[in-house]
Amino acid sequence: MPDTLPADSIGLVTPQQAHFDEPLALACGKTLPAYDLVYETYGTLNVERSNAILICHALSGHHHAAGYHSMDERKPGWWDAHIGPGKTIDTNRFFVVSLNNLGGCHGTTGPCSANPETGRQWGPDFPVMTVGDWVNSQARLADRLGIQRFAAVVGGSLGGMQVLQWSLAYPERIANAVVIAATPRLSAQNIAFNEVARQAIRSDPDFHDGWYAEHGTMPKRGLKLARMVGHITYLSEHSMGAKFGRDLRSDELNFGYDVEFQVESYLRYQGDMFSTAFDANTYLLMTKALDYFDPAASHGGDLAAALASASCPFLVVSFSTDWRFAPERSRELVDALVRAGKPVSYAEIDSQHGHDAFLLPDTRYQAVFGGFMNRVAHDIARAEEK
Amino acid sequence: MPDTLPADSIGLVTPQQAHFDEPLALACGKTLPAYDLVYETYGTLNVERSNAILICHALSGHHHAAGYHSMDERKPGWWDAHIGPGKTIDTNRFFVVSLNNLGGCHGTTGPCSANPETGRQWGPDFPVMTVGDWVNSQARLADRLGIQRFAAVVGGSLGGMQVLQWSLAYPERIANAVVIAATPRLSAQNIAFNEVARQAIRSDPDFHDGWYAEHGTMPKRGLKLARMVGHITYLSEHSMGAKFGRDLRSDELNFGYDVEFQVESYLRYQGDMFSTAFDANTYLLMTKALDYFDPAASHGGDLAAALASASCPFLVVSFSTDWRFAPERSRELVDALVRAGKPVSYAEIDSQHGHDAFLLPDTRYQAVFGGFMNRVAHDIARAEEK
Repeated sequence: MPDTLPADSIGLVTPQQAHFDEPLALACGKTLPAYDLVYETYGTLNVERSNAILICHALSGHHHAAGYHSMDERKPGWWDAHIGPGKTIDTNRFFVVSLNNLGGCHGTTGPCSANPETGRQWGPDFPVMTVGDWVNSQARLADRLGIQRFAAVVGGSLGGMQVLQWSLAYPERIANAVVIAATPRLSAQNIAFNEVARQAIRSDPDFHDGWYAEHGTMPKRGLKLARMVGHITYLSEHSMGAKFGRDLRSDELNFGYDVEFQVESYLRYQGDMFSTAFDANTYLLMTKALDYFDPAASHGGDLAAALASASCPFLVVSFSTDWRFAPERSRELVDALVRAGKPVSYAEIDSQHGHDAFLLPDTRYQAVFGGFMNRVAHDIARAEEK
Repeated sequence: MPDTLPADSIGLVTPQQAHFDEPLALACGKTLPAYDLVYETYGTLNVERSNAILICHALSGHHHAAGYHSMDERKPGWWDAHIGPGKTIDTNRFFVVSLNNLGGCHGTTGPCSANPETGRQWGPDFPVMTVGDWVNSQARLADRLGIQRFAAVVGGSLGGMQVLQWSLAYPERIANAVVIAATPRLSAQNIAFNEVARQAIRSDPDFHDGWYAEHGTMPKRGLKLARMVGHITYLSEHSMGAKFGRDLRSDELNFGYDVEFQVESYLRYQGDMFSTAFDANTYLLMTKALDYFDPAASHGGDLAAALASASCPFLVVSFSTDWRFAPERSRELVDALVRAGKPVSYAEIDSQHGHDAFLLPDTRYQAVFGGFMNRVAHDIARAEEK
């Protein structure tokens, strides 16, 4: 990071931790006896406690969405492009809450935490989480923070699924929903890619059925492969082509298996970085939460029927070259919202950046997203005036 | 296979083997001192030796393109839908030659063969092959069979690249070119998927830097993953969805990592079958041949300039839902052929089957492909009359 913080940065932030002693019943049938949630907040909660925005993270995300943890931190939080003073999610107006979900590996209780029953790491015994479980735990965090109702719940990708779940499970506690680059359920192809990632991790001899910590190993090979294949699905064919094309690392073909093309070098690097920074059991669990999410399933596949309980306005955003969760998947959600008679705005943003576009700055994306958030801020101000 | 052979099957076929003592200089700078090519032929070579069709295979293909090796064989050759009496490539009219390429693992000299210099398996010392090397070896097989000029060279996917190479390297020896579901060069995304497959194989502890045979192991985990990720790219999102959707293996979610969705079961099965039947070093080598193919590279990226040496009519075919080598990639080739002033017919076939569509029967595909081959047969007949 630079010597001075950028003017539109929320600046230095410190993660907080909330401990919950009340057991949490999970969709899988198990109960989490107690747990900690790690979270960050940006901005100030107003007196009416009406300006809170909840940020839900994606597959490999966490609570650190904006600002810097220290002046030495190389990069700001993962959504810093959109959260800060004067930004799309304006911390001069909103009180932003961003947490690490249960099962994560960034401080929140997860497979790396101690299992109170055994005293050793949960490891693979940590229960499989669902989007519904996460949203229930987020609602408890809201209680703890004294937030009865979020002005908006916002998320991209797997985060967008949590937003959708909020609108169905806690319609009275969510004033607005922003669902970005998401889908109401995974396709067979999505599940297939997740399954490749899981097989890569689980077939790594260093995985030891998930007890790698006790064996003093890390299934780095598997995690690296999982991340490489994931990464391909986050970029568009176009953005990969524009970034790397068929450029070679050196002037000549080496006719061997060392890195030859730039794209190989990039993928290996991304995979290596991830494999030492992320927990394998968490990765498995997050992919399962993705696979399972399907609110229409309990309504005979009728998404509009599933959405009947929702009551807030929606903003749905998709990106033209996103092939992980393509615009068609967002339109499926929009169509169902329309059929269910719910207020919804939809924007399909022209972008070359594939699924990753939801993380990046983009003029039209910011105009649409910022316009919606502006209206949310005005609603809060109007309510205060009364 | 059934008790009786289907009427439109070429019937029982027997692979043949040709030994070559003349060293083959390779693009990588090495020389293959001697080698064997395994091939099959269907139909009868006419007196003028003018009715020969060469079939070039794809990544995991081989010489067994049509018919059955025995009455016990469960499935016929890989292109049996299109090769046989009365079929698209009509063995009543054509003499079809189908070989296993160098570096393969189905009888042709490859990594599993003995290295004459050491007496042990070539293993990872087997030279990396290029599409150009293969075509040079195929030309020698043609010499051996007394075929001066093929009536057509035909192939899908990586096979289509070989057809293109034939038209450039041996324009006088190819009367017609049929390039199906191919591309004049891989994209960064294509290379990225190949690199994931290679990393999966090479990071398998049982790979032993390619010397697994000497260690009595097989890098099955890696090959399985490579095949799983490859398989996803062969199917369209639609065909995967239509075939499996979100169907579960059993009635309930198991909240664990056993097979849960049908698509997981299918992919694991495909991966397991492949991992015991295919050689890992061959798979690596084939992916490299794909990555390297780029005839425009030696012409400053100008594909039309590269095609200047071609002289035969082309048929180019693509499939609407093929996202491995999408229709745009075929159109790139067609546009360059047009710019180069070469005769070309192009058909984009509506299909739900993704890249795999080139292997399957389809009315319009067969009409276009069969119509072209019909004209090839008429040209042969007219030449005979003279």
